[in-house]
This record gives sequence, C-alpha cells and structure tokens, in this order.
Amino acid sequence: MSDIKKVVLAYSGGLDTSVIAKWISETYNCEVVTFTADLGQGEEVEPARAKAQALGIKEIYIEDLREEFVRDYVFPMFRANTIYEGEYLLGTSIARPLIAKRLVEIANETGADAISHGATGKGNDQVRFELGAYALKPGVKVIAPWREWDLNSREKLMAYCEDHNIPVDFNKKGKKSPYSMDANLLHISYEGGILEDPWAEAEEEMWRWSVSPETAPDQPTYLELTYEKGDIVAIDGKPMTPAEVLTYLNKVGGDNGIGRLDIVENRYVGMKSRGCYETPGGTIMLKAHRAIESITLDREVAHLKDELMPKYAEVIYNGYWWSPERRMLQEMIDASQETVNGKVRLKLYKGNVIVAGRQSDDSLFDESIATFEDDAGAYDQKDAEGFIKLNALRMRIAASKGRSPLK
Amino acid sequence: MSDIKKVVLAYSGGLDTSVIAKWISETYNCEVVTFTADLGQGEEVEPARAKAQALGIKEIYIEDLREEFVRDYVFPMFRANTIYEGEYLLGTSIARPLIAKRLVEIANETGADAISHGATGKGNDQVRFELGAYALKPGVKVIAPWREWDLNSREKLMAYCEDHNIPVDFNKKGKKSPYSMDANLLHISYEGGILEDPWAEAEEEMWRWSVSPETAPDQPTYLELTYEKGDIVAIDGKPMTPAEVLTYLNKVGGDNGIGRLDIVENRYVGMKSRGCYETPGGTIMLKAHRAIESITLDREVAHLKDELMPKYAEVIYNGYWWSPERRMLQEMIDASQETVNGKVRLKLYKGNVIVAGRQSDDSLFDESIATFEDDAGAYDQKDAEGFIKLNALRMRIAASKGRSPLK
Amino acid sequence: MSDIKKVVLAYSGGLDTSVIAKWISETYNCEVVTFTADLGQGEEVEPARAKAQALGIKEIYIEDLREEFVRDYVFPMFRANTIYEGEYLLGTSIARPLIAKRLVEIANETGADAISHGATGKGNDQVRFELGAYALKPGVKVIAPWREWDLNSREKLMAYCEDHNIPVDFNKKGKKSPYSMDANLLHISYEGGILEDPWAEAEEEMWRWSVSPETAPDQPTYLELTYEKGDIVAIDGKPMTPAEVLTYLNKVGGDNGIGRLDIVENRYVGMKSRGCYETPGGTIMLKAHRAIESITLDREVAHLKDELMPKYAEVIYNGYWWSPERRMLQEMIDASQETVNGKVRLKLYKGNVIVAGRQSDDSLFDESIATFEDDAGAYDQKDAEGFIKLNALRMRIAASKGRSPLK
Amino acid sequence: MSDIKKVVLAYSGGLDTSVIAKWISETYNCEVVTFTADLGQGEEVEPARAKAQALGIKEIYIEDLREEFVRDYVFPMFRANTIYEGEYLLGTSIARPLIAKRLVEIANETGADAISHGATGKGNDQVRFELGAYALKPGVKVIAPWREWDLNSREKLMAYCEDHNIPVDFNKKGKKSPYSMDANLLHISYEGGILEDPWAEAEEEMWRWSVSPETAPDQPTYLELTYEKGDIVAIDGKPMTPAEVLTYLNKVGGDNGIGRLDIVENRYVGMKSRGCYETPGGTIMLKAHRAIESITLDREVAHLKDELMPKYAEVIYNGYWWSPERRMLQEMIDASQETVNGKVRLKLYKGNVIVAGRQSDDSLFDESIATFEDDAGAYDQKDAEGFIKLNALRMRIAASKGRSPLK
Repeated sequence: MSDIKKVVLAYSGGLDTSVIAKWISETYNCEVVTFTADLGQGEEVEPARAKAQALGIKEIYIEDLREEFVRDYVFPMFRANTIYEGEYLLGTSIARPLIAKRLVEIANETGADAISHGATGKGNDQVRFELGAYALKPGVKVIAPWREWDLNSREKLMAYCEDHNIPVDFNKKGKKSPYSMDANLLHISYEGGILEDPWAEAEEEMWRWSVSPETAPDQPTYLELTYEKGDIVAIDGKPMTPAEVLTYLNKVGGDNGIGRLDIVENRYVGMKSRGCYETPGGTIMLKAHRAIESITLDREVAHLKDELMPKYAEVIYNGYWWSPERRMLQEMIDASQETVNGKVRLKLYKGNVIVAGRQSDDSLFDESIATFEDDAGAYDQKDAEGFIKLNALRMRIAASKGRSPLK
Repeated sequence: MSDIKKVVLAYSGGLDTSVIAKWISETYNCEVVTFTADLGQGEEVEPARAKAQALGIKEIYIEDLREEFVRDYVFPMFRANTIYEGEYLLGTSIARPLIAKRLVEIANETGADAISHGATGKGNDQVRFELGAYALKPGVKVIAPWREWDLNSREKLMAYCEDHNIPVDFNKKGKKSPYSMDANLLHISYEGGILEDPWAEAEEEMWRWSVSPETAPDQPTYLELTYEKGDIVAIDGKPMTPAEVLTYLNKVGGDNGIGRLDIVENRYVGMKSRGCYETPGGTIMLKAHRAIESITLDREVAHLKDELMPKYAEVIYNGYWWSPERRMLQEMIDASQETVNGKVRLKLYKGNVIVAGRQSDDSLFDESIATFEDDAGAYDQKDAEGFIKLNALRMRIAASKGRSPLK
Repeated sequence: MSDIKKVVLAYSGGLDTSVIAKWISETYNCEVVTFTADLGQGEEVEPARAKAQALGIKEIYIEDLREEFVRDYVFPMFRANTIYEGEYLLGTSIARPLIAKRLVEIANETGADAISHGATGKGNDQVRFELGAYALKPGVKVIAPWREWDLNSREKLMAYCEDHNIPVDFNKKGKKSPYSMDANLLHISYEGGILEDPWAEAEEEMWRWSVSPETAPDQPTYLELTYEKGDIVAIDGKPMTPAEVLTYLNKVGGDNGIGRLDIVENRYVGMKSRGCYETPGGTIMLKAHRAIESITLDREVAHLKDELMPKYAEVIYNGYWWSPERRMLQEMIDASQETVNGKVRLKLYKGNVIVAGRQSDDSLFDESIATFEDDAGAYDQKDAEGFIKLNALRMRIAASKGRSPLK
Repeated sequence: MSDIKKVVLAYSGGLDTSVIAKWISETYNCEVVTFTADLGQGEEVEPARAKAQALGIKEIYIEDLREEFVRDYVFPMFRANTIYEGEYLLGTSIARPLIAKRLVEIANETGADAISHGATGKGNDQVRFELGAYALKPGVKVIAPWREWDLNSREKLMAYCEDHNIPVDFNKKGKKSPYSMDANLLHISYEGGILEDPWAEAEEEMWRWSVSPETAPDQPTYLELTYEKGDIVAIDGKPMTPAEVLTYLNKVGGDNGIGRLDIVENRYVGMKSRGCYETPGGTIMLKAHRAIESITLDREVAHLKDELMPKYAEVIYNGYWWSPERRMLQEMIDASQETVNGKVRLKLYKGNVIVAGRQSDDSLFDESIATFEDDAGAYDQKDAEGFIKLNALRMRIAASKGRSPLK
C-alpha cells in the first residue's frame, strides 16, 4: 500500500467522500487532491473548497463542467435515441466518463499516481469510473474504499468522523435521506430504502425535480425545438447552448409532471436493482428527436440505428464510454445526423409529451407521393404487384414444395 | 382475365368493398365469395350479410375472430415488446395475417382460385394480405382492384354505384370521414386529410376511442394484471380470455386518455406517411409486460430480445408474419417467456401508465444481494476489483501501447 | 415509349448487347450511347469501338476503370471481411455500382434521359444497376430489354441479327460457352448449363483463371503483404497500386489453385441459384486481412464488425451500394481501420492460403502478458476470481432460485 | 479455507493435476474425488486410476463421454455454422461445459462442496469451468490452484513432487512438449513456446493429427454425408453415431491434410493469444453443413442465423454454454434445422474441402424457376420492374430532394 504517493479523489463535499479523503491519507499515507464538479446536480460546489481545506487538502479542483457534459456526452448519446432495457435514459451512466476523464487529467497535472471515488462495490459506478480511468491512463492505481475498508455501517462511519474531527453536520437537513441519490443535469436517481421492495410504490415526497402529473398545471405548454445535426440549438426560436437547453427543458418538463420513471434494472455486476429516476428534459428530448428523425432520416438508416441502439446503450451503461467500440458506434451515429435538421413542436401536459408537428428543409416526407388524393403519376400503383410477387417468391416456392407456415 | 373462376373478397360491408365485389364479378365474369370478420373494430358485422346478398353474393362468410386474433397474433407479438420505429404498436399490421389466413382457408373450402381485398397500391396492407396469401396458397391469384381499375376518384366510384344500383347510403353518417381509418381490437388508425401535413396538429374531434388527457378523470385508476408465460390471464384477480383482457384494457385505458400516438412512419413500399393511432390497451400492455419481465427475465435474455425486437417488428410491419423467419424468431421469444409469470400493479392517470409495483414467484430480484444494508456476505465487494481489472485489460493494453481514446 | 430521347447502354461489345443497342434504337426511336469499361475482365475493350460504330452509334465511351474499381469498391468491401452466405466474395455485386455510377454520369454529360443494360429479369444484376441509377439520378428512365422484348431464345436473337445485319461472329470461339459468365478484376463467375443441377460436379474445363489444386506446383509460394489502414499497399516489399495488388494476387493465387468456389446462393429476387466462382486474389486478401486485424484490432471492435458483416454483405449483394445505410456502415468500418497496419506473411500451396506470420507496430498482442512463462506481475491471476464470480452472479442467483439450465 | 470438506477435481492423470490433487488435500485438509473423462483426446484414460490411487484418492470417476460430447455439444454447435472471430471452430470451448456438468453431478453424488481444475488464471478455460459450475450448483466452491499457489515455475513444481513422492516420470516422453496442448474429439490445440511470437511460423513437427497438405495423398478422396435435422447420420451410406462420424471425419480429414489453423485470438480475460489448432472433422462438417443448408434453408432464416452466429460463438467461447441466452439461441437454431436433410458430396484433397454436390427431398432449389432456358412462365420477368422501382423509391425521393450518395 505504501507505493501510492498522491490520489485524486472525486469529492462531493458530502460526508462519505470527506471520510474517504481522510481515510486515504491515513491509510495510504499519501497526499489527496480533491476534484469537485458542477454537473448540474443542483447544489453549490464552491462550499466543497472550505470542507476540503478543513480536511487538510492542499490541491483542490472545483469546476463547472455543465456545458462540456451536455455537449460532449448527453447530446451525442441522445443522437442514438438511447434507452437501456426499454426504459432508462442513462442519466447516471453518462456522467461517469466525464468525471473519469477529469480525474485522470488532474492526476496527470498534479503528478498523482492513483484515483479514488466513493462508489460501492455493488454498483455500476465503480465500473464506469475505473474502466474510464484504466482506458485513459493504463498504469493508474485505483482506491475504492468501499471495497476495502470496514466502515460498512453508518455507525462506524460516525465513529470515524468523531475520532477524526470530521464535522457531521455536513448535511444541512436534520436527517439523512432514506434514499441513495445521484444527480446531474440529465437526471436525479433514487435507490434503496423502501424501493428495495419492487412491489412497493414510491412515495410522492421522494421526488424532487418534478411535480406529480396530478399537481401539474391544467393548461398545456407548447414548445418549439430547433434541431441542427441531431442536436437542439434553439427553443421557441431562442438560440441556447447545450446546458441551457437541458436546464430549460428540465424546468418546463418538471413543471408539467414529466420524466418520472420507476424500474427494476439489470446491473453490469450481475444483480437486479430497483431505481426511480426523474429525467424531465431527457424525456422530452427523446420524443422530440424521434420526431425530427422521422421526417429526415432514411428508413434503412433509422432501422439500422434502432438495431444497434440496445448495444450502444449497453456499452454506455456498462461503463465503456472510452472504449473503441463506443467510438466506432458513435462515428456511425454521428454520420447519420448530418440531415437531422428542422423543428419539432411539442405539447406538454401532466406527464405527457405529445408531438404536435415536425418540419424540415431536409424532410424526406413527400406529400405528392404519400397523398390519398390524385398524385399525378408520382407513384405507379402497378409497381406494387411485382414488388409483392418477388418478395413472396421464396415463400411461394417453399409452399409449393409442401412447407406449410401453419405446420 | 377469364381464367379466374371464383374469388374470396375481404368484405367490410362498406361502399368501397361493395363496389369491388360488383366490379370483380363483372370484370372477371366470376363468382365472388365475401368474408367479413369481427376483429373488434367496434361495428356490427352481421349487416354485411344483407348488403352482400343485395350484391348477388351467394357464399357469405361472417365470423367473430376476436379471441383468435388476440390469442394467436396480438399476445405473441407483445411477448417481444414489439414497437416499430420506436413508437408504433403495429395495430394494423398484426390483423392482416389472420385475414389472409381466413381468405385462403375459405378459398380452399369454396374451391376459389383467387382472393381480393380493398387495399390501395400505395400502402402496406396490400403487401401484408398478399404475402400471407402467397405463403399459404402458392398458386393463388390476387385481384387488387385499386391497382387495376380506373375508379380512382370519389366521383367515378359514385357514378359506378349509380350505374350498378349500389346503395350509397351505406355510410349512415351524413358525410364521409375526412380520414382513412382502420380499426380492430388493438387499435384504430387515421391517415389522410389534414394529417398529410406533418406540421399540422391532429384535431381533437378526430380521436374516437379515447378521451383526451385533459378531459380524463382527475382521479387515477389502479389495475393489477396477472401474467402467465408472458400473457395477461387476469385483471384485478378476475380471470379473462385474451379478447376480454384487451377489451377491458381498451375501455379503462381510453377512459384515462391513454394510447394516442401521432407519427411519421416509413412504409415498406418506400414512402413516409403520417399516421395517428389510438391503442389504449396495447399501450398499457407494453408497459406492464416490460415491468413483469424486469424481475423475471435474465439480463442477457432480455438484452437479446431487445436487440432482435426491431427486426421482429420490421418483419411483422412488412407483412412477413407467415414467413419462416418470423416463426423462427417466435420460437426464441416464446421460449423466453416460460418464467414470465407474476403480477404488475399499474396506475393510470390522464394519459400516463405508471408502474406501481411488480412481484413474481419467478422473480430474480434478490433483495439480500441488492440491498444497501448489510448483506451478510451474500455479495463479496472485493470481487468487483478483478471484474473491473480484467474487463479493462484490453483497454489498458491499448493505452499502454499509445492508443488514446481522446484521439 | 416515344418520350425517351437518348439512352446510355452498358455495352460489352458482345452479341447480346449489340442486339440490345439495335433493338433500343429501333423500338424507342432514340439515340444510343455505348459505355464499355475495362474492369479487369481480361478481354480487350477497345474492339468495342468498331462494333459500336458498325451499329451506328455516335457517342462511344470506352474507359479503363480498373484502379477506381479496386480502390473505391473492392478494397473498402474487403475492410469488412465481407462474405455473403458464408462463402461468396461478391465479385459480381461489387462491380455493378461503379458501372451504374458511370452510366448516370455519362447520361448527365450527354443529355441522355435513360440507361440500359443487358441483365435478365431473373437475376441480381438488373437490381444492382437500376437501384444505383435511381439513387444517383432519380428521374432516370430504365430500359431492360430482357424484361420487355420477345427475343427470349437464341434462335430469335440470331434471326434478329440476320434481319439487322449484326455480325454473329462476334464470339471468336467456334461455339458459345455453355455457361453464363461475368468477369472483372475480382472474379469470374459461371452459371447455367449443367450447373443447374446442384448435385452435378463442375467440369474441370469450365474453370479459366486458376489451375486445379491437383495441377498446381508442388512447391509452396510465400508472400509478404504490407497493410496500411486495412488496405494492401505493397507485396514482398514492392509498393503497388490497388489494381496492381489484385492483378498480382490473382496471378499468384490462380497459379497455386486458389479461389475456386461452388455454391447455391439466395438471390434477392427470391430464388436459389447455383454459381461457380474463381476469386484467387480475393481469397488471399480475405485470409490476410483477418490476420492483420487479429493483432491490430480491439476485440470488441472486431466482434462488432463481425456482427454487422452479414448485413453489410447483404446490402452490397442486393444492390444497395449507393444507399445511405451502406455509407453509414462504411463510416464505421473505415473508422476501425486506422490502426490496421503491418505485415502478413502467407504460404500458398495447392488451393491453401496459410498464414505464416503477422506483425505490426500497432499490434495489441502483448507477449509479456500472454506468456506462459513468468510475466513479472504484468497480469495478476487473482483478478480472474472476481471476474468470474461477478460474471456468474446472475446465473448463480437464478440457480439458487430454482432455475436449472438442465431443465 | 477450512470449511471445504470434499473437492471434485478434473483430473487428467498428468503431472499438473496430480500435484493439484495432493496440494488441495494438504492445503484444504479435505478429501479429493478425481474425475477423468475420455472425450476423444486420443490417450487412454484408465491409467489415471492407478495414478489417483497412488495419490491416496478414494473416489475415482473415469468415464467415456465421447458420444455425449459429440451428440449434445459438438453437433448442436455446428448446426449454427459456428466460428469465433472468422476462423476458430471452438474445439476447446465446447468441451468445457460437459466437464463442468459432470464435476457438479459428481459433487452432488459424492456430497462434495467444491470443484477444482488445472486451468491457469490467464486463460478462458477457468472461466468456462467455473461459469458452468456456478450456473449448475450456485453454492459450489471453486479451487483454482494456479491462481492461488506459489508453484508458478517448473522448478517449484518439481520440488513439490520430490517432497511429496509424486512420480515425475508421468510423461513417458523424455522431455515435455514445448507447447501447452488440449485435445478432444473435435480438435487438438497448441499454445506457448515459439508460438508466442506471432511472426514465427509453426514448426511442421508440432502438428500431431494431420499430415501436411504437402505430404497428403496425390489422389482426392470423395465422401458422401447424409444429414438429418442438421446432423450427419451416415457417411457413404453407412449409418454412424455422432462420435463415429467425428472419429471417421478426423481420420479421413487428417489423412488429407485438412483442418490446420494458426491464429491470434482475443481471450475473454482481455488479452490476445496465439493458438494453432487441428480440426480435421470439424473443418469438413462446417463446409458440408453450409452446403446442405444452401438448398434446404429459406434465405431469411439463413441470413438471420448468420447475423446471430457471431453472438452465439462468443457466448460459447466465453463460457456461457449453461446460460439462458445460449439456450434461447439454441431453440431458434434447432427450430431452423427441421428441414436440413439430404446429402452432400465432398472432395478432399491436400488441405482442400470441396463441395461436389448437394441434394435433398427438402430442397428449395427450383430449377424450373432458376433456369436460363425457357421457364414456361414459372417466373414473370416483368415483376422485377415493380420490385426494383419500389425498392428504389426511398432513394429516388432522397435524390430528388437533393441528397447525393456521392456527397
């Protein structure tokens, strides 16, 4: 253990990572660099500085990464209409690669030889942090205290704090939330507590970012989103940066009761776990992106994207953002988005995201061909006969040779 | 043309197929057998008998196929969580193979050598009817009047009716609907009219099966669905047949504003088209089926199903229900459903289908492992280190040889 | 028919396309432009000029496209290790898009409004020519004489020649080959004749480009191929252009009895057909490309390529080279080849292509880790325990809940 | 360590597993049960009894599993035309699940609570043994000595033997082979030694099961294989059991220089490794199975199998034979083989496996349609026009709206 000299720690400023900072410096007898990022989790990050200083940290990094997060991670992922297991929008998964990248870059800047994080040994996040770190800095060492130490109960943690003069009023709230939570500009997640019973309904008071559909306004809200190359660049005609887009959609989505999700998912480490998620902006973006693609993408390109999407989602969920296969898939996805330009009009109402219109200069919708009215010869209906007969040929031959689809 | 002796026609009793019945018997100088099916479209089918008789038809088939439709077509499809292009629940597509099968069986019973239908030469339905017919009776002839005749305007059709004494008050309503519609127990669809402009929002008065979310009740409705081998067999503890299940879910779903969809889709014949759909029961079933699978399916089985689903959806959408590849996929899907048993509790509210709980004797959710509390050694967190390090190995080697994921 | 003014015809100089040239100008009363390409089929193309002139053609295009063919079509396809139905190297399929492109470009240059070709209505080539033409020039008209005329027997063709003064000694050989053949720098194909019986073995005298393994030299030939970004750029240290590479490999491969294939394949139009192929250079390139990828590609990238290859092969076989989905797949494939650099050493012997060595500065093979000898800690064997235990977790949970893999 | 009472060891009778037997009983102070299987590796298994007795083993299992191995593992795998990374026929991978199953069954019979094997911590075999064991007996303990002990050099092993009176003349040959080898009825493999340099050509004297193509007979050998449901049931008209089939094909294949392979492959644990393989019978079976499928399988079924094959191969290679996803894939594969009946005629010659004919009562090859001669109207060439035009429609629309495939 003695060969580690300096560790960069993903530091939230909360109790757990404060204990970790102290525990590492004691256990490994090494320096700790803290890294605290604003990814849009909705809490101030600057207070982490004083807390780190109080722990004796000398090198403290505090950064606002919101634009980079949405531009380089969230938006590329949404170009693929990415959903894990039919439901989950990967809000936690997509933030980890950026943190891993910054941990490694800071390690390189500060001459650190190890990184550390506060994720447990049961979850996906440890995998995502560490796969990213190893891919970017192959010789890096990793300290994962939750897999190593014996402070595996709240009581032991508290005792450690007392022994080491770590202030436990870190959480301003009187009592700890019963849930394990994670938040960034894409979502907030809840696990643990009563959620460990999949038959138990989530309590209304658990949700933080959205009102319930019941308490949402009785009047719908209309939005117009402008797309360029698959990304939203303006809302209601007003140009916005990526982080502004997502911030705005979170606000308007949450106000309309949009984006709550309650699922049982399959973790990469092999267990099923129950999670609740609020993803107001992401829920809106997914629906709208499908709508703009529906008029601007070729059919076979769209179907190929759909067939590869589950793989792409799995790659991200499992922590392989920095892998060559993710980059290879991204090349293909991004190449498909060149023509994904135009506008989508949406109606938001009590949990519903309803497409009210889509238009594009790159539209492949051809009214003159699709019309039920006279098409002036744009489409020759007689072509369909040969189309059908040759598509049926292999089945006609099979049936004529005695193969029956009815068994 | 003179070599066709008898034709079985998919006959709705409406104006178009009445004209077709007459036109075929005149043009081909042959007998016409009519086949009218109750697939749950919501209209009486018995009146078709008198109309067919008035056209001089001697062999008239009128059948209630609702149970067969849901049991052998809708339910198998929902076992795969089937969605076309991320949105469409295939309500029209899934009814066509059953009609094609009955057309062929009736042709065999009545000694007919041809089948006919009222689908246009621009759409998917002609393909679905005819691929099915060819696969089941390879030497069958097909008459597709809309691809052959010159009655391609409402005026010409009306003139034809007048010339041939076909009563045009067939539609009881004063005026024809502006939409091209299709309905069965799974859904009702709307195309044409103002929908031909993808930027135009659908009118509220168009929708027929559901109230709007705005006018749905202010109180939520809770439902408990019981699954056996992937199919719903009881609701709120009451055993139901497949058609009863779907009928009930359509009612309660429609009452709660659930199941409206407005999309631009890619037809098999190569054009994009705008369609609006109401699928209340199907929307509920998809969400609930994912929920029961989430606790009863193995992760890799679930992911394999997800990867193959777009292909399976395309096969059905394009009309290949009776193909060997559909049956091959179905074998795999059905094999996966052996353990998909248990209950799902749902909350329906103003367009939202919310999962409120799931439980199963076949659950793979293991609370003792997933817990954030003490797991008494059920899971050894130290295992994660080796898991991550070997999963990272290929990327560590690559990075150590100078390959950077950051380019 | 009278609205066609000028047609660009893919003209081989042979009897069939000479009849077609005459038939089109008579039937459509229009001008014909001939286009003859040297794709490495092994026959002079210049004699086509005099033949075209004799038919009264005024605009005659004769071009050497060998380099473009190999560089822009064959090489990109081999980057994907492309095989159709496990066996076929797509020698005919890959030449058609280039011909389609030139037909369209010449139509644009000469103001022609139609293109034509000599492919039959039963085969894949008509599809490939016409899909390409429509994708590149959407309003183009297509004349496919074999689908239109009644000259569907050799006798009628001969009678037509006599009536129109078309010299029938076009084929220098005394009698016509019993096979339908197609050749280019990638392969030569044989269909028809006794091959129409899948139980009949091909005759030795049919094969033209290769000796039989039996008559190949008793001494092996060694080759060293140099790769850059997935393409061969030198052989035995000598830099070569793409066409030079393939020409050389055809020669040395054919001399060593390499590249014969005898299969039954599934055509896009729905029938099975028997074909024999000689692809000496392609057979060598496939084996060698897999070898260089085996040390330079990441595992997951290689597996993703393998999973997508059948789709990519089908796209090319079916004629969709100029489709957006082919280009999307190509983006991904090409992106993977950045590091596919290095050398492969091969041994050719009587039909066998044997890999004798591979090396690369971009190799990911790490002897210090892979070794059975002492690895000095490069790999910690204890990591495997956790790797296996977590990969097994979902199966252990399932088994502990009573699910048996043994049924 | 003291909680293990009895261990079932996969025991070859060789030096390594003899040391392991002793080491386990000493280290864990527990009983050892040995299990030795004849999988067709070509060595007597009965001598293992005396060796085990000499080590003090009381419960000794020696079994001939050749028929079960080929019938339930090799043949099902070949129904899918399974190849890993384009080259490898999975000869080692496919034997491991059977051994894992027997280890677990013997553990259940003898009341053992652990299993053990002699695979190293760097390879795939440890994963395959252990995943199988965990899937079949979730609470089983695993002892993997190579990951635990410090006998990691030949010298230490020898010293251990001397200290424990284990006879080291176990290997009758004067010196140990320079290669790490594994053999069963499907193949023999070689790793290590000079093969650790991917540029080094394998020595001729390394190969044991096949002559070189150079020294194979100058006369070809013809074979006729009879298939039922995708499996070979007779050769040259003589009915054979699965193990007889493979034994025979190994003999005749090896005699004709067939089945040698030299590759660099990607291991599941994350490293690349060089391996040489001899698989004479498997090489013949793969070629022949493709041939019989080529006339009996529907096109889309064949293509679906091809698309899923890489996944299926990966599942087996990585050790997931006993997983639910393998069984799900197998259901689909087996369902496709119902009609894979008939005969394949092969010519074997100096390393080449050449298909000389295929026939089947279930053939879908329709000569009357495929013929280049007059087909008497079986196929209407005019159908192709509509087929092509509608398949082109999406591309024509795109081009007419300014999208150019040429960029």
